Amino acid sequence: MDATGNISWGVTATALVLLMTPGVAFFYGGLVKAKSVVSMMMMSFGAIGLVAVLWILYGSSMASVSSPGQFAGDPFADFGLASMASGKGANVALLTVGYGATFAIITVALISGAIADRAKFGPWLIFVGVFATVGYFPIAAWVWGGGWIMHLGGALFGAKSGIEFIDYAGGTAVHINAGAAALALALVLGKRIGFQKGIQKPHNVPLTLLGAALLWFGWFGFNAGAQWATKGMESVGLIIINTFGAAAAGILGWILVERIRGGKATSIGAASGAVAGLVAITPACANLTPGWSLLLGAITGAVCALAVELKFRLGFDDSLDVVGLHLVGGFLGTIYLGFFATGQGLFVGGDARLLVVQVLASGGVLVYSFLVALIIGFSIEKTIGFRITSEDEIAGVDLVEHGEEGYALTS
Amino acid sequence: MDATGNISWGVTATALVLLMTPGVAFFYGGLVKAKSVVSMMMMSFGAIGLVAVLWILYGSSMASVSSPGQFAGDPFADFGLASMASGKGANVALLTVGYGATFAIITVALISGAIADRAKFGPWLIFVGVFATVGYFPIAAWVWGGGWIMHLGGALFGAKSGIEFIDYAGGTAVHINAGAAALALALVLGKRIGFQKGIQKPHNVPLTLLGAALLWFGWFGFNAGAQWATKGMESVGLIIINTFGAAAAGILGWILVERIRGGKATSIGAASGAVAGLVAITPACANLTPGWSLLLGAITGAVCALAVELKFRLGFDDSLDVVGLHLVGGFLGTIYLGFFATGQGLFVGGDARLLVVQVLASGGVLVYSFLVALIIGFSIEKTIGFRITSEDEIAGVDLVEHGEEGYALTS
Amino acid sequence: MDATGNISWGVTATALVLLMTPGVAFFYGGLVKAKSVVSMMMMSFGAIGLVAVLWILYGSSMASVSSPGQFAGDPFADFGLASMASGKGANVALLTVGYGATFAIITVALISGAIADRAKFGPWLIFVGVFATVGYFPIAAWVWGGGWIMHLGGALFGAKSGIEFIDYAGGTAVHINAGAAALALALVLGKRIGFQKGIQKPHNVPLTLLGAALLWFGWFGFNAGAQWATKGMESVGLIIINTFGAAAAGILGWILVERIRGGKATSIGAASGAVAGLVAITPACANLTPGWSLLLGAITGAVCALAVELKFRLGFDDSLDVVGLHLVGGFLGTIYLGFFATGQGLFVGGDARLLVVQVLASGGVLVYSFLVALIIGFSIEKTIGFRITSEDEIAGVDLVEHGEEGYALTS
Repeated sequence: MDATGNISWGVTATALVLLMTPGVAFFYGGLVKAKSVVSMMMMSFGAIGLVAVLWILYGSSMASVSSPGQFAGDPFADFGLASMASGKGANVALLTVGYGATFAIITVALISGAIADRAKFGPWLIFVGVFATVGYFPIAAWVWGGGWIMHLGGALFGAKSGIEFIDYAGGTAVHINAGAAALALALVLGKRIGFQKGIQKPHNVPLTLLGAALLWFGWFGFNAGAQWATKGMESVGLIIINTFGAAAAGILGWILVERIRGGKATSIGAASGAVAGLVAITPACANLTPGWSLLLGAITGAVCALAVELKFRLGFDDSLDVVGLHLVGGFLGTIYLGFFATGQGLFVGGDARLLVVQVLASGGVLVYSFLVALIIGFSIEKTIGFRITSEDEIAGVDLVEHGEEGYALTS
Repeated sequence: MDATGNISWGVTATALVLLMTPGVAFFYGGLVKAKSVVSMMMMSFGAIGLVAVLWILYGSSMASVSSPGQFAGDPFADFGLASMASGKGANVALLTVGYGATFAIITVALISGAIADRAKFGPWLIFVGVFATVGYFPIAAWVWGGGWIMHLGGALFGAKSGIEFIDYAGGTAVHINAGAAALALALVLGKRIGFQKGIQKPHNVPLTLLGAALLWFGWFGFNAGAQWATKGMESVGLIIINTFGAAAAGILGWILVERIRGGKATSIGAASGAVAGLVAITPACANLTPGWSLLLGAITGAVCALAVELKFRLGFDDSLDVVGLHLVGGFLGTIYLGFFATGQGLFVGGDARLLVVQVLASGGVLVYSFLVALIIGFSIEKTIGFRITSEDEIAGVDLVEHGEEGYALTS
Repeated sequence: MDATGNISWGVTATALVLLMTPGVAFFYGGLVKAKSVVSMMMMSFGAIGLVAVLWILYGSSMASVSSPGQFAGDPFADFGLASMASGKGANVALLTVGYGATFAIITVALISGAIADRAKFGPWLIFVGVFATVGYFPIAAWVWGGGWIMHLGGALFGAKSGIEFIDYAGGTAVHINAGAAALALALVLGKRIGFQKGIQKPHNVPLTLLGAALLWFGWFGFNAGAQWATKGMESVGLIIINTFGAAAAGILGWILVERIRGGKATSIGAASGAVAGLVAITPACANLTPGWSLLLGAITGAVCALAVELKFRLGFDDSLDVVGLHLVGGFLGTIYLGFFATGQGLFVGGDARLLVVQVLASGGVLVYSFLVALIIGFSIEKTIGFRITSEDEIAGVDLVEHGEEGYALTS
């Protein structure tokens, strides 16, 4: 679509989603110790730099395939986009690439929350480059670029069934993907020194709430952005309401659980609840009614408030709860569609077939992403080393890795 | 209007205005003590969660009436928006609801500035829910949804007179409304311990300036946003210039007063001046020429710089000057229209009738909103209690109410 | 163009570019000492207030000329925009003025980085007003408003040659202009007490990264914004990709230089690299292929990482590297076009004539802007004084000039 209204929304949405990754940097940055804030933010900003360059060079070419059997597109099909830029339809094609870049970036940046306080920056950048290439780019092709997941419903139930995997804006391609990779890296790097419940207090709550605010703001572009490629942009209204409602209900669900369990409603809980609701509605934003979206947000807020405790029981140090928010939230939203997707879900006049597709596809990505991240992570850890030493961890990763301190407030 | 250009601006404006409430959280959050910053921000983030859910469930139904005699619309007309989402024109209708949600949210969030350092969070949320329901939702119906205020000019001077109350973007429905309710809550909760002029220094000036920046940024969506529903969006340019000019002149007006009174130009003054100018131009943005808008901004900046001193003389602790900025600024802009509204104001070729309507309508909302907030506030204070104890106030509301501290900068 | 899609993007871009100046305030604010953060931010916020008012009053009239021989337009042609607001085409005309205001503001605000820690606020505001009037407004007319620079190629090589100076979004009019003026003011005010390499640590790294994030976010509006005035907005896609790629490559270029020189990759380096890449692509965003844009970004990131050392060798205290980033980056992008501009550059099938025009025009602005700023700056310094005293500098400019402290974190 090259109506100017569509173009206008396309470029706006690109800017909005780009801003989400700094949002991740601030959300994560506020949660860690003061002596780790630079490292935490740099993992996101480094991902912005590297993934954007790779995406333009060859990533966007890899993210679409011509037959469902392909693993990924040819990275050298239009290296550096020279043909695209001079071809017919360049405007729409290039804007599509720009919009897609923002998704590739944030997926990889989200993973960094699992390895707070203890990751080397150089090895992280290597992970970013490799995981983007063999993790995100192919998965984007599978889910949105003509790959096997797009054809899974047809393959299982026949093309005439109309059953197709639903992941409108990235519940699987972005959030389950990032969450599974985060779990892998948490295992690769191991626990922080002194890891136990309640040990870490956010060093800067306003910074985390700023991050949450930028995330929500940008999420309108994340969920409704793809409408720019749709004639008439006719689902924008529904997507906005669903995104709004799920995030708001996520806040309420999370802080309600905090209160029910005898605690206080926390600001970190409210921020996390909003993010949880936003993650869950991401795959589902175009396929639920507003009421079901509110319920999804509330459930996800409540479930994630419980899920973030799991790491202490199971003993993996997913430091900033990428698993508890993004994997759990993304999975909830994806499966919820199997039950409540308008006209298709098991509980709203459909049958169980969509649910089967939702489980298989998202589960497939989960396993693939986990394994790929595990292999890359271990390869780095066993060669050049991924984790800093205990002495450096105590001294603070910012000084050791970046030669910087986050604050000098008495200067 | 469902041209894609209009839709594009509608969804963008919705995102912009949503971001304003975090802007309020940061603007307010930076102004209070460090040990109150979490509480301050949570009053805004809590309002985002609760008001958005209520708005989707029944608030937007209440915000339009079919006859001017109605108090509000039927809250159960389309509970949860299920009919709307499947009906014709769903896209535009749902986007309208989404855009409207952001106004409902910020109106209630603004009130929190009056009760810094001393409010319980649970009771605040109850206030939020009740005031949104009986305060904002009906007032929105009166001003924009076919209610009595929209018909006031016709009732007084005949439908042929063409005299209609002007509140393009919420000088009365949002700012006078919030300011009057803030005054009521300041009275209900009483003064902070040690309340006197100069006692409170902002704990984080950059955070407050960030809030002001996000407010101004979002205000383009606040003032010009409704143009998305207008064919051709033909007043966007005028609204943008007027909004820009009034905010800028508000900065200059405020810091000039600071200098004239023998003091220094402060950054809090500059930020407050911008907000004051923005509040004043809100009702007037589509009905003034650029020159009159500059003057309105300058006057409002100067007047509000003086008005924020009133609380010390009159002895009410409107902690962060919701009255001095939003009630005074909103009233100035509303009345100014009676004098300078293009083609209608008393001083620019019109007559006094518009002025009469402006005074009556805004005064009516002021009184109603004040009384409603007073009743709700006292009911809460006398039952479950709204204000924390003196011991808790000294210990800090963040720890007591949320179990959190804003900063842990030496970690 | 008054298609609603164009209008929608025009108003969105105006909001985006407005947000860049607070972005400058935070980027600069985080880099200085804690006791200078208010002053640093106020120089930007003061510029927002004053330049916007002047632009609306007479600046936009000055920024277009009817013949190339004119120095600037008549400031009183439509003082206060009254005629424009009531004329035909008011919507597009006023939106153009609003969009233009954001460029005038940021150009002047950028200069403040050269005089951190030591400038009086009142004299700064005087500089802002005078430099905007005789520096920015005429230069905008020369580059974009029909002035001599727009006709330089035709004058040198004949109108039929098609050779025209390329500065799509302000490499010369904004960045070289601001950088040259910054150099002048650094000379006028002299070095800070204790000026030497490594002496100043950023007091708040997250604040600086927030500034960088807002700058990048807004830069989509800065570079692609003018497309709103173009039918079909057909270069938006190219501009977005080029802007994205150059910024990302700028990050990589800068931190690579840091590593090669034996240091660590710093977050300030990453943020500066992104800004450097964005500055360089500003003039060139519509006239390069994506691959050449990546290369430009990488080169600029690397060169600027070296260029910011110059001030220590040459002994001028351009405190926050306005010269090293904006003058150097803007010049690199401008000259690079002479070599690589699609279809015109020396190395891509063109000839040397464009390069000649690029050098002459940008050099002309550089010299003019430097001299004007030098004259204004010295006139202020020698009369009312521009620089604070040494005692005040040691006490801290915030307290002395604004009576404020940036933080009160133990309150």
